[in-house]
Amino acid sequence: MNHISATVITIGDELLIGQVVDTNSAWIGQALNSIGIWVKRRIAVGDKWDDIWNTLEEEQRVADIIIITGGLGPTADDITKPLLNKYFNGELIIDEAALQNVQQIFARYNRPMIQSNYKQAEVPNTCKVIQNARGTAPGMHFEQKGKIFFSLPGVPYEMQGMMEAYILPELKKRFVATPIRHRTVTTCGLGESFLAEKIKDFETSLPTSIKLAYLPGANIVRLRLTEQLEINRDSVIDEYFNQLQELIPEIIITNEDISIPEAIAQLLLRKNKTIATAESCTGGYIAHLLTAIPGASRYFYGSIVSYDNSVKENVLNVKEETIKTYGAVSEETVIEMAKNVLEIINVDYAIAVSGILGPDGGSPDKPVGTVWIAVANKTITKTQKLSFRYNREKNMEATANNAFNLLRLLIKEVG
Amino acid sequence: MNHISATVITIGDELLIGQVVDTNSAWIGQALNSIGIWVKRRIAVGDKWDDIWNTLEEEQRVADIIIITGGLGPTADDITKPLLNKYFNGELIIDEAALQNVQQIFARYNRPMIQSNYKQAEVPNTCKVIQNARGTAPGMHFEQKGKIFFSLPGVPYEMQGMMEAYILPELKKRFVATPIRHRTVTTCGLGESFLAEKIKDFETSLPTSIKLAYLPGANIVRLRLTEQLEINRDSVIDEYFNQLQELIPEIIITNEDISIPEAIAQLLLRKNKTIATAESCTGGYIAHLLTAIPGASRYFYGSIVSYDNSVKENVLNVKEETIKTYGAVSEETVIEMAKNVLEIINVDYAIAVSGILGPDGGSPDKPVGTVWIAVANKTITKTQKLSFRYNREKNMEATANNAFNLLRLLIKEVG
Repeated sequence: MNHISATVITIGDELLIGQVVDTNSAWIGQALNSIGIWVKRRIAVGDKWDDIWNTLEEEQRVADIIIITGGLGPTADDITKPLLNKYFNGELIIDEAALQNVQQIFARYNRPMIQSNYKQAEVPNTCKVIQNARGTAPGMHFEQKGKIFFSLPGVPYEMQGMMEAYILPELKKRFVATPIRHRTVTTCGLGESFLAEKIKDFETSLPTSIKLAYLPGANIVRLRLTEQLEINRDSVIDEYFNQLQELIPEIIITNEDISIPEAIAQLLLRKNKTIATAESCTGGYIAHLLTAIPGASRYFYGSIVSYDNSVKENVLNVKEETIKTYGAVSEETVIEMAKNVLEIINVDYAIAVSGILGPDGGSPDKPVGTVWIAVANKTITKTQKLSFRYNREKNMEATANNAFNLLRLLIKEVG
Repeated sequence: MNHISATVITIGDELLIGQVVDTNSAWIGQALNSIGIWVKRRIAVGDKWDDIWNTLEEEQRVADIIIITGGLGPTADDITKPLLNKYFNGELIIDEAALQNVQQIFARYNRPMIQSNYKQAEVPNTCKVIQNARGTAPGMHFEQKGKIFFSLPGVPYEMQGMMEAYILPELKKRFVATPIRHRTVTTCGLGESFLAEKIKDFETSLPTSIKLAYLPGANIVRLRLTEQLEINRDSVIDEYFNQLQELIPEIIITNEDISIPEAIAQLLLRKNKTIATAESCTGGYIAHLLTAIPGASRYFYGSIVSYDNSVKENVLNVKEETIKTYGAVSEETVIEMAKNVLEIINVDYAIAVSGILGPDGGSPDKPVGTVWIAVANKTITKTQKLSFRYNREKNMEATANNAFNLLRLLIKEVG
């Protein structure tokens, strides 16, 4: 198959020294896939003239489209613009529309412009300018030897705006490609190799146009089918996706490519139910995951983060006796936490967690990774004990995943 | 300068289609820098034989060390091991130590082993095996034409364990390199170009061994100095770092390369003070940032997330009157939230926030991006009104950054 392929080049020393995690490439990959363009490689290079130059030359040989992000700021460490100017044999000129944009932004914030702000409006005369509705640095569109180059700022919000307003429509106009289709299920409760064993025959039966991938996470595994067809061939991915789901119905959290919190949010919205959390070891993380989703106020009411035992007793009204007898990390404590927060915040469902996520705080009896979860509505309470062996961060993620899954099972049981 | 350089290659379609954000490369970059090795490029390629092969050949030409992560799982989409076996002309054999490791892990979880689990212990006979203390997939160490190759699993926790136990000590033994030194300050309250204007002369005065970089974030800018010296030359970075700090003392949140929550945590620990939060729009995010840090129980007591106004009134005891008269997003409301949570959870300091982070919920009076923050101790309350124009996610981050900065200013004032 001869597909349109793209390379994403991100520029900045901060990506190489580990000071910043690159989220732009993932976003661009998803956006390009949706219009049928395959990202062949993602490359990060430092703010070094030769490294950027050589990468451009290499990628021009292997990809049809090259998208470059970063290095367009107003400061001296940003060298992408002069480099592209030279690479495409241009001269820097002021772009009037870009200048107006910069001036408007400064007027809006009531700030005086300095020299480096004017320079933001400079662009090579060999490019088509991509205006930036969300910031001061304009983007650039070059063409050379049949290859297309786009240069965008590294600030995710600005980059995304320009991808949506200019680059995706432009590429859609020029290339007729069948979209690359992805179908994903998220499973909880079965390890990667056991899952593979269970769907071995299914995997063997897949046509060459469909690939299966396993994406293990914190106590979850996502399974992804990807189909890329020749133009004018009919998609069969949904047929295989249904088969896959029928093989493992009991462990699927969601069959959409959404996060687990999003799946829970949709479930609550469909049932028109509200939720609150009582969190000890997760320290607000579960509440944060739910409220990171736009429109969370329709189902999420609040949370009591009882990191210190005094908060468990004084705000969540967990009996001093319970904590003394069974400990803060116990089935008895999380049951009281769940039931009480249900009353205090007055919601339909509650999640409560208490555990030891590490690195310290474990005991022979309750080693690091011991977590108790309770989910409850007014009549039913379900609990689960977990023993994780990850690090603190992944223990926290796994706790949230399991808490959401236990809640899903309770909601399913209630009907 | 002729430095030891490395390339990091991450393997997996999930990185190219945007389903997973690559955090491994950043971690590896930081680890290698600490022993003086510069990461020249980071490349992500899909689970495609030719793409991986070609990338290996290219990178072998330009880098001294090639670190490969991912594609070592037990399932059919994982092709890194057979590919490296072929690339280095080997034969797959069972490694006894790796097999024992797999068997022990399965025994520990009391699970039967299936065929694919045994295959995990297979390795090319042309490599030195890197044992995996945190999972079933062993790593591999190859050498060819003076270049060093390491292959590691993509699971961050396993990869990190093997880097620390084997690769970093191995590289330190073989290369004498001066560490690449980084010094970073985090500032809040001045835009990138104004900051640049303010330190223009400083920037010009830097020797060629030191580079300055600007890393803008959500209403913050980090400034990073990086020094890489020839062996036996004396470091001068701290001298310049002090100069930099003297130019902008009032806007620096921290002069360590740590996150803002970590800086606040250290400040609270130094002063031996405790904290709680009362969060509306941030929905537990600030509590989560504080409790993501190991040992948070020494200063963080808890949080009341009052997303719904009923929780503000019934749990946080904000007067119905206040919300009716001034609105939930108002100075009056956040002051009551801060003062009340201080009493309810009984701590030294409190952070309270209420705002509209978007995309919906704005009004002409209080557009999306309007946020009120209050910080308080028993005698002083400070407030700040903010108007952000980012998306929901970045508005939330900017809110947290400003809340932490306002708290820092209060703690400084108290002394």
